[in-house]
Amino acid sequence: MQQFASDNYAGMCPEALAYLEKANGGHVPAYGEDPYTEEVCERFREIFKHDCEVFFVFNGTAANSLALSTYCKPYHSVICSEFAHIETDECGAPEFFSHGSKILTAAGEQGRLGYEGIASVVHKRSDVHYPKPKVVSVTQATELGTVYDVNQLRNVQRAAQDFDLKIHMDGARFANALAELKATPAEITHEVGVDVLCLGGTKNGLAVGDAVIFFNRDDAAEFDYRCKQSGQLASKMRFISAQWLGILENDAWLKYGEHANNCAIQLESELKKIDELELLFPRQANSVFVNLPEHVRNGLAAKGWRFYTFIGAGGVRLMCSWNTQPESITNFIRDLKGLL
Amino acid sequence: MQQFASDNYAGMCPEALAYLEKANGGHVPAYGEDPYTEEVCERFREIFKHDCEVFFVFNGTAANSLALSTYCKPYHSVICSEFAHIETDECGAPEFFSHGSKILTAAGEQGRLGYEGIASVVHKRSDVHYPKPKVVSVTQATELGTVYDVNQLRNVQRAAQDFDLKIHMDGARFANALAELKATPAEITHEVGVDVLCLGGTKNGLAVGDAVIFFNRDDAAEFDYRCKQSGQLASKMRFISAQWLGILENDAWLKYGEHANNCAIQLESELKKIDELELLFPRQANSVFVNLPEHVRNGLAAKGWRFYTFIGAGGVRLMCSWNTQPESITNFIRDLKGLL
Amino acid sequence: MQQFASDNYAGMCPEALAYLEKANGGHVPAYGEDPYTEEVCERFREIFKHDCEVFFVFNGTAANSLALSTYCKPYHSVICSEFAHIETDECGAPEFFSHGSKILTAAGEQGRLGYEGIASVVHKRSDVHYPKPKVVSVTQATELGTVYDVNQLRNVQRAAQDFDLKIHMDGARFANALAELKATPAEITHEVGVDVLCLGGTKNGLAVGDAVIFFNRDDAAEFDYRCKQSGQLASKMRFISAQWLGILENDAWLKYGEHANNCAIQLESELKKIDELELLFPRQANSVFVNLPEHVRNGLAAKGWRFYTFIGAGGVRLMCSWNTQPESITNFIRDLKGLL
Amino acid sequence: MQQFASDNYAGMCPEALAYLEKANGGHVPAYGEDPYTEEVCERFREIFKHDCEVFFVFNGTAANSLALSTYCKPYHSVICSEFAHIETDECGAPEFFSHGSKILTAAGEQGRLGYEGIASVVHKRSDVHYPKPKVVSVTQATELGTVYDVNQLRNVQRAAQDFDLKIHMDGARFANALAELKATPAEITHEVGVDVLCLGGTKNGLAVGDAVIFFNRDDAAEFDYRCKQSGQLASKMRFISAQWLGILENDAWLKYGEHANNCAIQLESELKKIDELELLFPRQANSVFVNLPEHVRNGLAAKGWRFYTFIGAGGVRLMCSWNTQPESITNFIRDLKGLL
Repeated sequence: MQQFASDNYAGMCPEALAYLEKANGGHVPAYGEDPYTEEVCERFREIFKHDCEVFFVFNGTAANSLALSTYCKPYHSVICSEFAHIETDECGAPEFFSHGSKILTAAGEQGRLGYEGIASVVHKRSDVHYPKPKVVSVTQATELGTVYDVNQLRNVQRAAQDFDLKIHMDGARFANALAELKATPAEITHEVGVDVLCLGGTKNGLAVGDAVIFFNRDDAAEFDYRCKQSGQLASKMRFISAQWLGILENDAWLKYGEHANNCAIQLESELKKIDELELLFPRQANSVFVNLPEHVRNGLAAKGWRFYTFIGAGGVRLMCSWNTQPESITNFIRDLKGLL
Repeated sequence: MQQFASDNYAGMCPEALAYLEKANGGHVPAYGEDPYTEEVCERFREIFKHDCEVFFVFNGTAANSLALSTYCKPYHSVICSEFAHIETDECGAPEFFSHGSKILTAAGEQGRLGYEGIASVVHKRSDVHYPKPKVVSVTQATELGTVYDVNQLRNVQRAAQDFDLKIHMDGARFANALAELKATPAEITHEVGVDVLCLGGTKNGLAVGDAVIFFNRDDAAEFDYRCKQSGQLASKMRFISAQWLGILENDAWLKYGEHANNCAIQLESELKKIDELELLFPRQANSVFVNLPEHVRNGLAAKGWRFYTFIGAGGVRLMCSWNTQPESITNFIRDLKGLL
Repeated sequence: MQQFASDNYAGMCPEALAYLEKANGGHVPAYGEDPYTEEVCERFREIFKHDCEVFFVFNGTAANSLALSTYCKPYHSVICSEFAHIETDECGAPEFFSHGSKILTAAGEQGRLGYEGIASVVHKRSDVHYPKPKVVSVTQATELGTVYDVNQLRNVQRAAQDFDLKIHMDGARFANALAELKATPAEITHEVGVDVLCLGGTKNGLAVGDAVIFFNRDDAAEFDYRCKQSGQLASKMRFISAQWLGILENDAWLKYGEHANNCAIQLESELKKIDELELLFPRQANSVFVNLPEHVRNGLAAKGWRFYTFIGAGGVRLMCSWNTQPESITNFIRDLKGLL
Repeated sequence: MQQFASDNYAGMCPEALAYLEKANGGHVPAYGEDPYTEEVCERFREIFKHDCEVFFVFNGTAANSLALSTYCKPYHSVICSEFAHIETDECGAPEFFSHGSKILTAAGEQGRLGYEGIASVVHKRSDVHYPKPKVVSVTQATELGTVYDVNQLRNVQRAAQDFDLKIHMDGARFANALAELKATPAEITHEVGVDVLCLGGTKNGLAVGDAVIFFNRDDAAEFDYRCKQSGQLASKMRFISAQWLGILENDAWLKYGEHANNCAIQLESELKKIDELELLFPRQANSVFVNLPEHVRNGLAAKGWRFYTFIGAGGVRLMCSWNTQPESITNFIRDLKGLL
């Protein structure tokens, strides 16, 4: 039974699996000195139209935490939305990897940060008794299923420039944002001042393995040591990089992002037709947030549906994935209507 | 071209790949709440004949560091061989995860720790100005290609009891040790006082994923939080646990361990026939250490052979893997002889 | 010119200085194995009517952070008021010492935590993706100049019992709270479930040196190592412990706490007479919070008065100390009135 | 009874006490914004003939650890002598503050590091599986009672330049080294490439408080945050800085360093006259190392003498302090002779 709980419930996409199988032949050097890793890094440089440095780690928590700890000394702080994954769902990983950097949440709209929210956190304190802001972190697409358009990213960039902050982008669902925005990867990253992008592979159809992409090579110095020391250097790295080769080829990653978005559009459209329900945020990526009465939530659970009751914003999150099937949506809506 | 540099150069074994493919059907819950993970944990409890707690992490560095940090507060220390991977090849990961625990190396023979070596480190200091020993760490098979037999492990156990230490076993090549000893997993772990085993999957034929096995359930309390916070909780955990199911079925893991050992036996046998060469340690697992003159090392490298020049003990390490082929050995010996 | 900015602006009280001078004779063992330290620990056991373990560290930030890190593993969290010093004024020290424990702020009234506030934080999450609450921290007197009475502390205790939390008390101004409550030290600490008290010495008239008092001896095991490793073990410890002997003798510490409170009472009384001003919280310890118009704040600053504009709650904090003089209050009120 | 166990057994020198008393008048700003702190920083700049940045922390362990963590990321390493205090007597503090940096010990002579020892550690490894050397740490005077002369420091500087290392000097007994060398502070610090000096105050006659002196202002950026977060920012800082003013005035610090050295000279001279005894290292500062038979050590202990049996080098360390009295030496020698 397909689910709307998380895009982590889906398996590997065929392209990733095929490349993993293909990479399995013969002996190759370990720790990233294999030809697959070299090739995929080159591909990323083409895709981002930039001489970026690319590293592969095992998951998004590690990607975000390691990227942040590159910029943050223990007495620094990171500004993000109160809904940001680094604040709400990483069990203190950024604090752990950075050895104490504090996460400071800023107000924003629909999961996004804006200039004013960032400014108000920065202006709150400027003495040694409080951690010094060093990075602003944006999630693209956001945890509320919205995306930052280029103008909104430029506002973040302006704040970062004014307050001497680095920009970290949590791109766990970057492909979904790209699909929505019809933008190029460059336009929503280094061209708007993003210093480092944590690019999610797992939610995009891989079994394991996210990428950390530094747009300034100096920032990436010694990041290989950082990965190794924190248990994030894969010995058989080819099995991660090959999967990436699979989904980058023929733009499969974008195709899957678009597919998941389209499923969410269909789901939203069906939900909107139901008068009793209230949708919480504008759908812009692959998730829909809706308020469901308790008996409906329980009824759906009894029928085997799993979903997250969204922390801190109320309602239920319905997440579509790279392989969500139309009939799953139909079935879900049918079961839902039957409970109203 | 097959290599003797590292067992990490080999790919996935067929059993692991087959199970990974099999696990790819459908949506399943993330973060280890899937049926594959449940099943493989049960299999481990059967294999070890013990009600152990099992966790999966991404690699051996993380497994060792997280296991050690479970027992060690920052002011504690870990006693190990000077050749131990945690001392020589993890870039300070144990210190990083434990927030400062010091690694104290003890003298031993052929890569093993004995009672006297442990005792002499413990007796060196007992004041607050020096980290307090808390764990003794043994590697099975050792980094020098030897193994601890049951009696040798009992000596370690006796030291651990006398000095109030926990026992950590780095089992990156545990299957090779089992194959050599003709022992059961229980006999060389919890029956000789091992508290936690870090069981290597990668070197045993997986693409990624080592297991941490606690033999005392109390020690495992909240280890799931520890994994999550340190970026070691796989969202699509099924792709790790399924691979384990593959190699545990029909004792494939032991079969591969034995195969690698047999290749090392053959390699050692051929090397012994060459008068000019000196073998460094008794072969007991899947590696052979030999002194090679510089021009021979360079000549082999020129022909495309890769191997490690072993740090701290001199000579060259030749490592066989789950899929080393007899003709690779033949070719290597032929090329080597041609250079003498 | 005396100030109302902080009780840290005042110097050493005569009793502390006299004992420091007295302790200066001769050679004594270092690191706390001197007779002064032994004696003062015994005195604390009498004062608290409890077989407690006492340690001395250099300041309150270290005391709080080390006490919290005793209970918290990196993936744990600490619940406190949004105004708590550990949240607002220690630059991430608790996160640093604990290697990542997150501070979770709970709603409360007038700087205090209550059962409901604690419960709502605990109930917010119970999955491994969010740090697990382990300690509730109360400040006595609070950062808003209020105190917890015994009943209010019992509510905290009830929550701690219900949710399996340890209780940490930041007693930077513990003597002021005692003076206000007319309670014994035992009644507001171990008798209401406090596990560890960080007892401020600096604000009470010492030059340097706060005490960490564990009411359960097991909790204190190896705390000496923790202090040493974190740079908080004084080599010439006698110079801290002797100062404590000075202020504990003849209840000087309580006398000074009462004096500071009385000054705040006088200050509050004078401010209340000024119609234009609004007092922010009920005065219960040695500080008064008042809203002052900007031109008044600037005018007072121009006359040399220093004070904190209180972060996060508005207004100005006026803090009295162990040696605040009545004429300072008179002068301040006179200057203030002249500006209205 | 005076002792030769540690220069920490001695109290405060009169100059430090007098200035502490003098600084006790009136209210002054906290956290180092007082006039005493400003003045003493200026004095240091004169003494070192350099525009250095000066910070005060509570002890040498913190000074060393914070200075090292300024340069070291967690995956870096520090090269020092096997006898260095940071390796042997700080309970893992450097690893704790730096979040995992490894201490690598290099061979040297009589407690000093030389070019070859540093080079051999650097050349041992250069891959990401081992921490990257970043700092070389020298102790002046060394833990074996010897000093580095200018030429020996230049050798260290040459190694630091060749291998891109920063130079940290642990100056717990810097005044003793100065007295021995008849050098200026500048000549044995920034003029030979020292980047940061941790200058011991406690062993030089203070009650508490060591200085961290950065010779490159850029290195000191945000060090105030680092001190605050790690519990090393004194609220009543004047009581540390005033003591320093006391001992810097009229070169009291140097006078005391010389006095302690002279006592050690006398002690060495007396010990040399005793045929049965073997002196271990050339005396160059304020300590003497001698082999004493077990019954003599026990006999001296029975008479109330305390001293350290030196870890790792054998023998007994006899340490003279700023206030060692000639009759103490006479008495010690008399008791010692009586036991032979």
